[in-house]
Parts: sequence; C-alpha cells; structure tokens
Amino acid sequence: MSKHVCVREIPRPDPAIAKQLATYGVATVHEAQGRIGLLAHYMRPIYAGKSIAGPAVTVSAPPGDNWMLHVAVEVCKPGDILVVAPTSPCVDGYFGDLLATSLKARGVQALVIDAGVRDVATLKEMDFPVWSKAVFAQGTIKASLGSVNVPVICAAQAVNPGDIIVADDDGVCVVRHADAATVADAAAKRVANEEDKRRRLAAGELGMDIYKFRDKLAELGLKYI
Amino acid sequence: MSKHVCVREIPRPDPAIAKQLATYGVATVHEAQGRIGLLAHYMRPIYAGKSIAGPAVTVSAPPGDNWMLHVAVEVCKPGDILVVAPTSPCVDGYFGDLLATSLKARGVQALVIDAGVRDVATLKEMDFPVWSKAVFAQGTIKASLGSVNVPVICAAQAVNPGDIIVADDDGVCVVRHADAATVADAAAKRVANEEDKRRRLAAGELGMDIYKFRDKLAELGLKYI
Amino acid sequence: MSKHVCVREIPRPDPAIAKQLATYGVATVHEAQGRIGLLAHYMRPIYAGKSIAGPAVTVSAPPGDNWMLHVAVEVCKPGDILVVAPTSPCVDGYFGDLLATSLKARGVQALVIDAGVRDVATLKEMDFPVWSKAVFAQGTIKASLGSVNVPVICAAQAVNPGDIIVADDDGVCVVRHADAATVADAAAKRVANEEDKRRRLAAGELGMDIYKFRDKLAELGLKYI
Amino acid sequence: MSKHVCVREIPRPDPAIAKQLATYGVATVHEAQGRIGLLAHYMRPIYAGKSIAGPAVTVSAPPGDNWMLHVAVEVCKPGDILVVAPTSPCVDGYFGDLLATSLKARGVQALVIDAGVRDVATLKEMDFPVWSKAVFAQGTIKASLGSVNVPVICAAQAVNPGDIIVADDDGVCVVRHADAATVADAAAKRVANEEDKRRRLAAGELGMDIYKFRDKLAELGLKYI
Amino acid sequence: MSKHVCVREIPRPDPAIAKQLATYGVATVHEAQGRIGLLAHYMRPIYAGKSIAGPAVTVSAPPGDNWMLHVAVEVCKPGDILVVAPTSPCVDGYFGDLLATSLKARGVQALVIDAGVRDVATLKEMDFPVWSKAVFAQGTIKASLGSVNVPVICAAQAVNPGDIIVADDDGVCVVRHADAATVADAAAKRVANEEDKRRRLAAGELGMDIYKFRDKLAELGLKYI
Amino acid sequence: MSKHVCVREIPRPDPAIAKQLATYGVATVHEAQGRIGLLAHYMRPIYAGKSIAGPAVTVSAPPGDNWMLHVAVEVCKPGDILVVAPTSPCVDGYFGDLLATSLKARGVQALVIDAGVRDVATLKEMDFPVWSKAVFAQGTIKASLGSVNVPVICAAQAVNPGDIIVADDDGVCVVRHADAATVADAAAKRVANEEDKRRRLAAGELGMDIYKFRDKLAELGLKYI
Repeated sequence: MSKHVCVREIPRPDPAIAKQLATYGVATVHEAQGRIGLLAHYMRPIYAGKSIAGPAVTVSAPPGDNWMLHVAVEVCKPGDILVVAPTSPCVDGYFGDLLATSLKARGVQALVIDAGVRDVATLKEMDFPVWSKAVFAQGTIKASLGSVNVPVICAAQAVNPGDIIVADDDGVCVVRHADAATVADAAAKRVANEEDKRRRLAAGELGMDIYKFRDKLAELGLKYI
Repeated sequence: MSKHVCVREIPRPDPAIAKQLATYGVATVHEAQGRIGLLAHYMRPIYAGKSIAGPAVTVSAPPGDNWMLHVAVEVCKPGDILVVAPTSPCVDGYFGDLLATSLKARGVQALVIDAGVRDVATLKEMDFPVWSKAVFAQGTIKASLGSVNVPVICAAQAVNPGDIIVADDDGVCVVRHADAATVADAAAKRVANEEDKRRRLAAGELGMDIYKFRDKLAELGLKYI
Repeated sequence: MSKHVCVREIPRPDPAIAKQLATYGVATVHEAQGRIGLLAHYMRPIYAGKSIAGPAVTVSAPPGDNWMLHVAVEVCKPGDILVVAPTSPCVDGYFGDLLATSLKARGVQALVIDAGVRDVATLKEMDFPVWSKAVFAQGTIKASLGSVNVPVICAAQAVNPGDIIVADDDGVCVVRHADAATVADAAAKRVANEEDKRRRLAAGELGMDIYKFRDKLAELGLKYI
Repeated sequence: MSKHVCVREIPRPDPAIAKQLATYGVATVHEAQGRIGLLAHYMRPIYAGKSIAGPAVTVSAPPGDNWMLHVAVEVCKPGDILVVAPTSPCVDGYFGDLLATSLKARGVQALVIDAGVRDVATLKEMDFPVWSKAVFAQGTIKASLGSVNVPVICAAQAVNPGDIIVADDDGVCVVRHADAATVADAAAKRVANEEDKRRRLAAGELGMDIYKFRDKLAELGLKYI
Repeated sequence: MSKHVCVREIPRPDPAIAKQLATYGVATVHEAQGRIGLLAHYMRPIYAGKSIAGPAVTVSAPPGDNWMLHVAVEVCKPGDILVVAPTSPCVDGYFGDLLATSLKARGVQALVIDAGVRDVATLKEMDFPVWSKAVFAQGTIKASLGSVNVPVICAAQAVNPGDIIVADDDGVCVVRHADAATVADAAAKRVANEEDKRRRLAAGELGMDIYKFRDKLAELGLKYI
Repeated sequence: MSKHVCVREIPRPDPAIAKQLATYGVATVHEAQGRIGLLAHYMRPIYAGKSIAGPAVTVSAPPGDNWMLHVAVEVCKPGDILVVAPTSPCVDGYFGDLLATSLKARGVQALVIDAGVRDVATLKEMDFPVWSKAVFAQGTIKASLGSVNVPVICAAQAVNPGDIIVADDDGVCVVRHADAATVADAAAKRVANEEDKRRRLAAGELGMDIYKFRDKLAELGLKYI
C-alpha cells in the first residue's frame, strides 16, 4: 500500500547506449522493441528539434503540488531525465525556469511530465527540453508528499526508475532498463535495413514490389478498377 | 455495400487552377465556394508555412492498418495529395519517412490524414508537408484491406477522388472537381476585392463605414454609451 | 438582464505599468497577484515569442457571428488588446487579416479570443499576435448583436473592460484595473527575489536547502531509501 | 457551390424493411452492410431503451441557428427521422419540446442531431427519442438559411435524404436507400446465425472451438504458459 | 488581490420565486433572461429527473482540496445550493456521501461542482442531487485555503453568492439575485405563450405558419424544389 | 521485449475478500489503500447500480482487434473480471452480447475495457455489467495476436493478472493481489469509522467541529466576514 519514499540510487544504463537510442529516435526504438512503451500522443515537446535519451528519475506527485520535484533534484545525476506523473489528472504548471536552472546545474537533460509547465519561452532560450501534456502558468503548492524513484504510470505507460526515456518530435517512448542493449541492437539493424529501402524508394521503386504485397492483396480480394 | 477496390484512374484538375487555389489559400477558397468543404479544425500542419493544392488520391483504411497507403502510392501522379481516412477513429502513426520518400519520388505534394503520423522531424527536413489529427509514433499493421480512390469522409468532410485539396496554416479545404474553375474565379474576385479593403483599412478607414453597418446596427437596437 | 450596448470609454492603465507587466510575463504576474486570473490552458499563441500587456476592450459575440468585432474596432485606442468571448462554445474563425489590418491601423496590440482565428500565416507576417482556442478557417456571419466593453467570461475568467491583459508563450492572464500598480510592484519584487535564487540554483545549490524543506518533509514522513 | 434549398420529395424505403432494421439494431445492421455507415461514437441517446429505423429528412443548418428545422417539419411524413448537421461544430440546443410536439404531430419518429438539444426531461415524458452530441439549454436564433433534404455529413458519416437511419442504445447507423433490402436480408441471416452461436456459447462451448481459432493462433506464434 | 475569506451572510431570494424558477426549468429561465447565465454543457446531473432552484453558496477551492466545502457547510441555510469552483481544472472527487449527509441535515438542496464527485449510488439513494463535470472516486486533501461566498467562475459562468441557481436535466443556469423577480415574470409569460403554441403545434399547425416564416425565407432566397 | 502469450493460471484472491471489497465499493477501497489504483474517470458503467469485485484476467489487444478476448474466455473461472487494454487508443466495440453470453456461461462477473462495447441494451437485459471508455457499434477484426494474463496498463493504471478489480457507479479501482486482505481490513475500519461520523453529521453536528478544523484554518489565515 501507499507510503512516501525517495529512493536515492537507481540503475542507470551505459551512457553510450542512451546516446545511440537518442540517435535512432522514438519511432525506430518503439518499433525495435516490438511496438511497446509509447507514452500517450498528447505528450508534446514545448519546442521542436530535440532528440534525447537517458535514465528516468521518476516522481509521483499529488495534483497541483510540485514539492516532490524539489526532492527529486537532489538525486538526479548528469544525463538523467526527470519523469513526473501526477496521481490524478492535472494540467497545472508544476515546472518553470527555476527548477530547470537547478536541474541543468546538475546535468539533467530534460523533463517529461504528464501535466503542465510554464516559462516555456525561457526554457527554450535555456535549451532545456520538455515534453508535457499542457503549457499552463497555473502555480502549484508544496503541501503534500509524493515519492521519488518509485514505479509510476506516466501518460498511459509504466515507467520504472532507471528505465530509459527516449524523446523527440514524435513523442516519448520508454525502454526497460534490462532491454536497453537488445533494443539498441534491434534499432541499429532496423535503421540499416531502412536505409536500403529508403534508397530504393527514393529511386522510384514501389513498396508494393519491395515488400511483395501484390499476391497477398489479390488473394484477400482487392480488385483493381 | 462494402467491398475493397483500388481505382487506378481519377479525374485531375488543370494544374494551373490547382496552383491558383494554393495561392489564394484555405480561408479565401472556403469563402469563395460558399463556406463549404472545410475539414475539422483539429487537422493541423506538422510544420508551418506551406500552402498547397492538388487532386485527392483517397484512401479508406482500417484502424491501425496502413497497408492501403502502399497500394495508393502506385496510382499517385505528380502534384497529387494523398488523403487518408480511417474507418474508425484512430491516432496511430500510419505514415513516416519511408512512405514520404516513396510519395516524393512520385511527385506527390503532401499528405492529409485523419489520424497520426510519425518521423515528423525528418518529414520537415524533407519538406514533405502533412496535415494530421495527431503526431504519434505508434506503429500500424498490414493485415486488412481497405480501398483506394473511393469517396471517403475525412475529418467531417466528404472527399471524392480527384476533388481538389487546398491546405495551408489555416487547415484543409476540399473543392469538388467540377467546381474548380468556378471557385478559382470567385476566389480571384474575392482577393481583388479584399485588396482594396485592406488598403483602406490600413489607412485607418473603419469597417463600420466601408461596409455601412451603422444604420442596421442602430435599427437592431445597439446602444452606444 | 441582457441588452446590447457598445461602451465607448473605458478606464485604461498607465502605459508604463502595462509595459512593466509585459516584461514580467504571465507566470510571474499570475503568481504576484495570488494565483488568480489565468485564462484556460487551451488559449495558445498562434506563433511563439511575443510578450505583451495592455487594457482589454471586451466583446461579447454570438456563436459564429463576428459583427461586434467591427463595432469594437472603432472604440479601440493604441495599446489596447481586443478580448472576444462567444456566448456559447464556438471554434469558428471570427478573425482574419482584414480585421487585423484595421486593428493594427489603430495601434491595437493583439487579439485574445475564446474561439477560432484564420489567416494565421498572414497574421504572423504582419506580426499581429493572437491567443486563441483554435485555428479554423470557418467563416462567420454578421446578423446578430452582441456588446462591446461589457464584463465577459473569456476562457474561464471574468474580464472587465479596462482590465489589463498579459499574454506570452505561457498563455494569458488578466489583472484587475484597480490592482495594476500593486501587482506590478509585487511582480517586481518577485523577479528580484527569483534572480537571487536563479543564481544560487545555477551554481548548484539545492532548492531543498534554499527553501529549507528537509525538516518539514521528514516530519510529514518522507523516507529516504 | 452552396445555395439554399428545401427539397420536398425524397425516396422513402418500404416501411416493413425499416421496421425489420429497427428490430435487428445498430450493431447487427452495421455488420450486415460490411461495417460502414456508423455515426461517431459521441452520438448518444438522451434516454435508453429505444430502437428505431426510418428514412432521413436531412437538415444542413448554420451554427446556433435552428430556422431550417422549422422548414423541415413541413416536408416530414409519418415514420421519418430528422437528421440535423450544423455547418460548423456546435453544441447549442437547436431542439426542444415545441419542435418535438410539432414533429410528433406529423408522425416523425425521432431526431438525430450532431449538436445539442434541450427540454430532455419533457422529451422523455413525450417518448420522443433523440440521439445527440450534447444536452445544452443554450438557445439558437432564426437568422440564416440552410437547406433541407440535401446530402449532409452528420457525425462523420454522409447521410442522403431518404437513406435509412437505424438508432438504438449502441448509437446511430445509416443505410443507403438503395441497399435497404439487401442489408435487411444480410442482417436477417446474421441474426439467425448468431442465434445458433448464442445457444452453443450459453451452453458453455468455446468460441475458440466454434470458430476454430486454435490452429491459426498457434501458427501466428501464440504461446500458452 | 487574492485573500481567503468566508462570508457568513449572503442575500437570499424569496423562496417562492426560487420555487417558481424550479418549475419553469433551465431552458425557459435561460430564454426568459435573454439567453445568458448558462453553465458549460459538460455539467450533467448524476441522476435524471430533478428540477431545483435556490440561492448559491459559493466555494472557491484549490485543485484536489475540499477543505473549504467543510467550511461552507456551516454558513448554509435550508434551500441553499452549494456551488464549487476549483481554481484550476480538476476532476477529483471533492464530494461524497458524508458531506451530502451534512448538507442534507442543514436543508441544503443540491451541489453544483465544476469538478468530480463520488459515492454517486448513495447520493441517488439519499436523493441528494448533484450536477458535476465528472464522477471520479479520487480523494482530495485538506491542506490549503480557499474562500466561501466570494464571486466565482463556475463552468464558464460568473456566480455570486446569493445568485439563484436553476438546475434540471438540461443543465444549470444562474440568475442574478437582483433579476430574480423580473426573470420569474418573464418566464411565466414565456410558459403561458408556449402553452398556446404547444397546443396548436400538437394539433398539426405548422411553426412556418404560426411564426409567419414563409415570406422572410423566400426573401432571403430559400428555394423549394 | 514483446511476445505473445496466454498464461493459463493466475493467482486468485479468497472469494470472501472479493465479496467484502464489493460491499465497500470503489471510493472506500481507494481511500483504504492510500488513494492509489483508480482507473481514469472516463471509465463508466454502461448501466447503473452494480457493485462488484473479483480477480482480473487481463488482455492486451491490438487496436480494433478482439481476437484475444476469445482466447481469454477459456482461461476465465467463475467470479473473474475480464480487463481489456488496447495497445493504442481505440473506441471500437470489442465486445457484444455473444462474448458476454460466453463469459456468463463460465461465471465471469463483468468486463472492464479501455475501449468501446456494443449491444449494451442486451448486456443490460442479461445483467452483465461493463465499465468502458465508450459505447460504439464499430466492429473489430481477428487478425493480430496480443496476450492474455500479462501485466497491462488499463485507463492509466497498471493491472496484473489476479489483482482484484473493484467496480461500481463511481468507476473502477485495482487492488494488488498481495494487498487484498490488508485493504479489506482497512476498508472495514474506515466504514465503521464513517458510520459514526455519518450519524453525527445527520444529527446536524458540523464537520468543522468533528474534525476540529477551526484552529488550523484560523492559523492559516482564513477570515470570517
């Protein structure tokens, strides 16, 4: 049953693997791990053009209360990504430029939050990327406990502390800590394979022929008119 | 009743007319044809600044299944716009950079889809514009048939193959194939007429005077205090 | 009970105070006045990077009818911000480049509308900022009366004519006319205070220590593991 | 292009076939015609327990303007179902007990409206069923023209005058006029076939065996643990 | 600027007028006062069939914090209606059977809340009606202050303490305290007038004739085909 | 990484404890376990008045594909509750009266599904309760694998096979298998404690006094006027 904790140590992936996953991006990583782990599509970047990956420091926070984010800062390490999940639906602005300054000072890469953020113009200037459900200046309080580094459900996906978060303009995906290397390998293969297809498609070859779809479509009853 | 077909040939408008409609833009075209044909307001461009027009190649696709998009590629011609309508509500990412590469190789201008897309950073780099309901990396399967170049309902509007799609930062509008020339003429007149009004308004003249609103407002009972 | 009026004169704040509030921005102003006055989070800028403040000229308009916006233009003065609230929920495009040209000719700074706008590419080119609920090219009619410069409810907040609207990438906030100077002072203090905190946080000090959170968290039962 | 008409005469199906379709219900009819024609899932009955079918008298109406509903009453005949589609999204209450009284006096069965209704307690007492997008007391005006008995898009489906509307607690489905008899036959077969399956399933037999799923599931790789 | 108060005394309308307004219902009252004062259409009764009216005791509450509801109970009198508006959007269950028991003991008629409620089966058994934005069992805390009997914005409408709330199956409407008698009179006239129309419509007369629409429709260009 | 399995055996709670939890209901159980485990508020019963609890048989299903529900039937036992989570957002009608007949034949109590259902009038007649995100007659296919009795995320909560589902008119809550007895005890105490409070509140005592709120409110600065 529920109690409030802050777990100081979490497993973290090999930074080289996180870097690799950031290069592949969300769509490829999501495919490479069997189409699992995608956060809800309402999670959008506050500005375009970033592609990142790193271990999740998770926060379970009450609605409209950002106290636990301050607690979480202390246990973050360079390369981490803060993942915040309110315990009931909320669009309040849990996070602004002061918390971003503090996280940046500790080398944290980004924030993923199933709620609102504010100071987004400053966050963009600081180049501190955020994926959120909303932009909303509504302030929060610091009155109730939550937990840091416990398993959370963020935007319809389970995220455990130390799982790898991959985020880019397509959204956010979570990779289990234990799967990081395997997924990176699968993604690498997928990218290589796609490169060849991209070249052939760019040259005008048809997917219908590359993927040999014609017979199966005919068999299922597709008629050409 | 329902059956699955791919219609190879569709009527296509005079490219000069399509080009003209692209110049006028969605708001003007929509007005010029009597305020009809506007797709739902949730259809948004994945990046700003494009204004296009061209004939619709339509796809009716099952939820979460993008097989028919591959079928559609083959029947596309330069200047076409692919219009995809799922048969039940869906935000999955039907479309990414590989399909865009293939469409681009055939000269297709853009995608309009009442569902999700992915690889949006790459699509922007490729300058392949998309208007969609969502950005979502969730993959699709290739298991069930749909149809290509049949009438569809896309984002609350009926779209027939060969109808002209006009899309810009304001959204997406459909013009019936048979109305293309008439609408282009009406839009041209509207633009000319607006140019004069824009000049007068910029010079400080009031719409109240230009449009002669004062008497009618007074008659309906508007009081100035 | 309801009747239709256009009030010509409204109180306007000292332009210097409006300018100051624009500098502080929505999140700071909202905090400085005790976390009140924030319009709903669905009110978003049509392009990023603007930060403005000025007195509200309010419009209560029927759904799908923009006639009163034309009436409002005449009573606007340089620095004003037009605030439009439909009497029932509506996403139609009440506002486009012609009305913007007219407002700009009178020195109006911006539009805040709990409905749709169109011609957004042109509005961006003109540098006429808009905060709206939707972008939608759907045209409106000019058939029914509303009122200008009466109290309205816009995006879940009461706005009186002459109240100060503050808007930036975080959204929109309203400050009561009578509170303008007090809020500006409070915001100035807040900014000064935050500057010191920002410096300390950037240097790596923890919010946990700056705000002295540790004892209270322990007392409430937070466990570190 | 757009013009405003009221078409007095529409094709109407054999009442016996409409009655049959009402008995089968939405889910069965929708399946029987190949899973097409279902209105959006937000169309809900204002009270439960009705199952109806009849020819559509269609109304295309401006947002917040119910004038055309009064025009439509006159061309309705016993057994008809009024189908109302606003030209832009709207939740205003177009319809209440007076219009229902008038429709009932003419033998109209029901209303299907992609907008709001009001007086729902009275409508239930009168036993006049309505499927709508919203319940909202917001009044409408009578200022602008629309059309009666033209093709409309209602809740994401094209509806032509004289098409058969089938509606029950599951929602609303449209059957093309020309398909009525064929769909009724297909639905009858489906019901007969389901009756046998229902009996076997009720007796404890498994769908896995009745539908012979086991081999195909194994072949696709499903593992039992 | 914001401070936290509980105002003990509010103006209350003549109970006979409240009773009258309850009889007329939301749609009629809303019309009678010039189509103003309607709360957003997402405010729905937790069970059907109630029609009430009475003075508003207002509560402004933080998100996810129901402490002020307990404060409000004490200042309620028989016939009152509790109106709760969170300061930021929230669906948490602020209210359940214990608070309802307490309110009922004081003769309070109902709750109107722009948030969630729980224990709805028990509330129905107790016959304590609620109009809410959501049903959600998520608990709230008692940590932060709000205010009681201050003006609030509830579901897009301003509500002052002592204003009359009218609520039924069509939703919720607010009547200004000072307008109560005038609105009741206007509503009475409206009802009398409608009674005659209802009788004529039920007898088969057409609204087209009763309201004399034909000439105006023809003049605007409606064509019969 | 993802693979498709059907796990035949799951832990099941003592039926007496499930029965007890059903009696307490969702709001109480949710409180008793520390305000965790509540499914999203959009999960609503298709008809009111049921209160149930039992072990979850979980199904992870592709969007628009209900094949795995047929697989799940076979591993269900009397008292079970089927919990269905699509792998991407979907409102299609996965479930109707035939599947309900089959589940009922095996003694399954109910369905909880983060998607659509159909045949709701028949389901009510059969007294087979369902909590769902939507009612929608849109059919599904049987083409792709998913899994049965694996951990799923359903409506924003993690559900493991054998966890206890509690559902009533307030929504749906999940209790971890291991916590069942502890939560039942805590809920029993809570109910007993509430009974006393309910009696006192019904007698007119104030929560302000019972909970001793006055001093703390005064200390935080609440002013009475």
